[in-house]
Amino acid sequence: MANWTLEKVEGLDQADPLAEKRRLFHLPEGLIYLDGNSLGPRPEGVAARLAAVVEDEWGEGLIGSWNAAKWIELPQSVGAKLAPIIGARPGEVIACDSTSVNLFKVLMAALTINKGRKKIVTEAGNFPTDNYIIRSVANLAGLECLAPPADRILEVVDAHTACLVLTHVNYRTGEFYDLEAITRKAHDKGALVIWDLSHSAGAMPLDLDRAGVDFAVGCGYKFLNGGPGAPAYLFVAEALQDKVQPVLSGWMGHARPFDFAADYEPATGIDRNLCGTPGILGMAALDAALDAFADVDLEEVRRKSMQLGDLLVDLVEDQCAEYGFNVISPHDATMRASQVSIAHPQGYAIMQALISKGVVGDYRDPEIMRFGITPLYLRFVDIWHAVQQLHKIMEAETWRRPEFSERQLVT
Amino acid sequence: MANWTLEKVEGLDQADPLAEKRRLFHLPEGLIYLDGNSLGPRPEGVAARLAAVVEDEWGEGLIGSWNAAKWIELPQSVGAKLAPIIGARPGEVIACDSTSVNLFKVLMAALTINKGRKKIVTEAGNFPTDNYIIRSVANLAGLECLAPPADRILEVVDAHTACLVLTHVNYRTGEFYDLEAITRKAHDKGALVIWDLSHSAGAMPLDLDRAGVDFAVGCGYKFLNGGPGAPAYLFVAEALQDKVQPVLSGWMGHARPFDFAADYEPATGIDRNLCGTPGILGMAALDAALDAFADVDLEEVRRKSMQLGDLLVDLVEDQCAEYGFNVISPHDATMRASQVSIAHPQGYAIMQALISKGVVGDYRDPEIMRFGITPLYLRFVDIWHAVQQLHKIMEAETWRRPEFSERQLVT
Repeated sequence: MANWTLEKVEGLDQADPLAEKRRLFHLPEGLIYLDGNSLGPRPEGVAARLAAVVEDEWGEGLIGSWNAAKWIELPQSVGAKLAPIIGARPGEVIACDSTSVNLFKVLMAALTINKGRKKIVTEAGNFPTDNYIIRSVANLAGLECLAPPADRILEVVDAHTACLVLTHVNYRTGEFYDLEAITRKAHDKGALVIWDLSHSAGAMPLDLDRAGVDFAVGCGYKFLNGGPGAPAYLFVAEALQDKVQPVLSGWMGHARPFDFAADYEPATGIDRNLCGTPGILGMAALDAALDAFADVDLEEVRRKSMQLGDLLVDLVEDQCAEYGFNVISPHDATMRASQVSIAHPQGYAIMQALISKGVVGDYRDPEIMRFGITPLYLRFVDIWHAVQQLHKIMEAETWRRPEFSERQLVT
Repeated sequence: MANWTLEKVEGLDQADPLAEKRRLFHLPEGLIYLDGNSLGPRPEGVAARLAAVVEDEWGEGLIGSWNAAKWIELPQSVGAKLAPIIGARPGEVIACDSTSVNLFKVLMAALTINKGRKKIVTEAGNFPTDNYIIRSVANLAGLECLAPPADRILEVVDAHTACLVLTHVNYRTGEFYDLEAITRKAHDKGALVIWDLSHSAGAMPLDLDRAGVDFAVGCGYKFLNGGPGAPAYLFVAEALQDKVQPVLSGWMGHARPFDFAADYEPATGIDRNLCGTPGILGMAALDAALDAFADVDLEEVRRKSMQLGDLLVDLVEDQCAEYGFNVISPHDATMRASQVSIAHPQGYAIMQALISKGVVGDYRDPEIMRFGITPLYLRFVDIWHAVQQLHKIMEAETWRRPEFSERQLVT
């Protein structure tokens, strides 16, 4: 552990090759935002883009904008911007629907491809909404759903496993799987593999093609900064695309949607995974938001993420040692994704007190304060000041005030 | 048929009780927009609302806006605004996903409720994307799917029919079903009934509760003016709500989504029909757009719609008699929904020529020019001038120019 001072921390910002990216984002004056893993802030280009969509494209162009403003191509063109972020080819990714709906689609597709196999495997501690969908699909298809702890996943994947579905990063602890190793080992048993990248895409380099991943899904509103409830995306490896038989067979996935043909004929390639009419406002916002990644080296993002996370862990353990915090994310930065989770019996109230002082993280049961690490707009001094604030709150026992323990629906 | 003159037509506008509603919409200068049944124009309040969402709520409020700006309640609050438009109670409607995804949800729910019955019935000429979904569900559930012509539907619905699924208005002809009579007759056989209201909601009074409808879906971007690819909605009759077992069991339909519980427990009431995180930009636009309906009497809308449609039919048949147009929508306004469809062998080229002159309708195979009738912002003089333009185009044979016969993807 370095003997940190504000001056040393400022030195890290001065040496930061990503420092100038911060001006691409709108961040409220004085706020330290450590919740970009839950909802990314607004990239500066989004407001103007949305105003153009609303005023010119919808307002003046009306129905003609489906062609003239290329609304109809947004699922594909946004997909093409997402592709390098997750290590895919442009025609392997498409933006559409929500993560949960997309998980349903790819899971149903995987079960058709691996027909005859009787098990779906996931992790007990997987992101809850994913497990709700996985169990629903297992129930629908009459398959067994196994959800062992993370360290026993590969023991359970066998020759009867149709599909392994995992979230790359654990949302509670920030630990993450070795995506490539797990994919290969599951493939050795003939299982198809689906990854949910919601908590990793945009925060660390990914290479789905090199890893041989079959399917992936993810959301657009966390590290990708696409806005509240932004469209999600899905990835299908090129080799599997023509084997997908869409269950959600809406017109946008038809080979010729504007023929209004009586019979469904799936489009070629990734397009058949579309269903209904895309929401253009959300698509345009995500499209503009992704421009922030245009010339970003995700290896650089990852390096800074690890540094920022290490600094946060160091400072909390050094400066707040007497307050009973327990860093539950891995101390080894190479094993920790882009968040730091810190447990405390009064975690909820402490987080509310922090938020009231302009340091925004969030809270997840049991007792977990989550701090999102978002290298494109977070400064090292933000981490310094956040921990100073945490220390003040603990020292003054501010968090004991009754208003900080009243549970709210969402933080 | 009246002997129409421009003066007589202007008289209709002067007497129109809905005339002042036009100023609630942004309509490009000089354009006559007869495609509001495909994409409604922008209500004036939407731009300011979206700017507030983007700049204040997302930009400044960030994650806290899920509570503070009530983002989390939008599916329900938008549903509550939709409820009176379709004759439902506020807790019976929720805004979410796309029409196709919602049709999948309610169809799966209906099949579970009517388990053991072996048939789904729809109409051969139903809106194609609905039939794609219906056949996919039939295939998934191992049921027979019957799609007779419209006049034979009730012969086919029998004691083996789990569900009847129909679109209220035929998108090609503008004819519409007697929703209440069909619902009651299908109920007599024990079938559940699902209506797609995409082409009627906002254009005519609907009373789902009085008609005893079980489920309904519809889109937000046609007569409801919610914007391109606006969120869709779904309706579940109160008595059936607790029998719905969601297949798309995402976290937003959970009884306590923010508990992140390991097991799925459906919310009570309509909420369990939600799946993933709602797209807030699209939701907010639809929410603001629906304010245009706040004090609108849909009986008044219907009266004006019939008058406008009659005027269009009269003028085309009177002033363009020699050009071979065939009005395929019912001449009897009480049997015609809010569009007029006119066939012509050169319909595609004629429509393109009209659009080039600022009269925007659309075209659907075979040979059908569609004119949407949207009483909240359409004037009687718009219909007069549209037909004048049509006459000019036919007389000058403008539509024979080669550029008007090149097919585009979307009109």
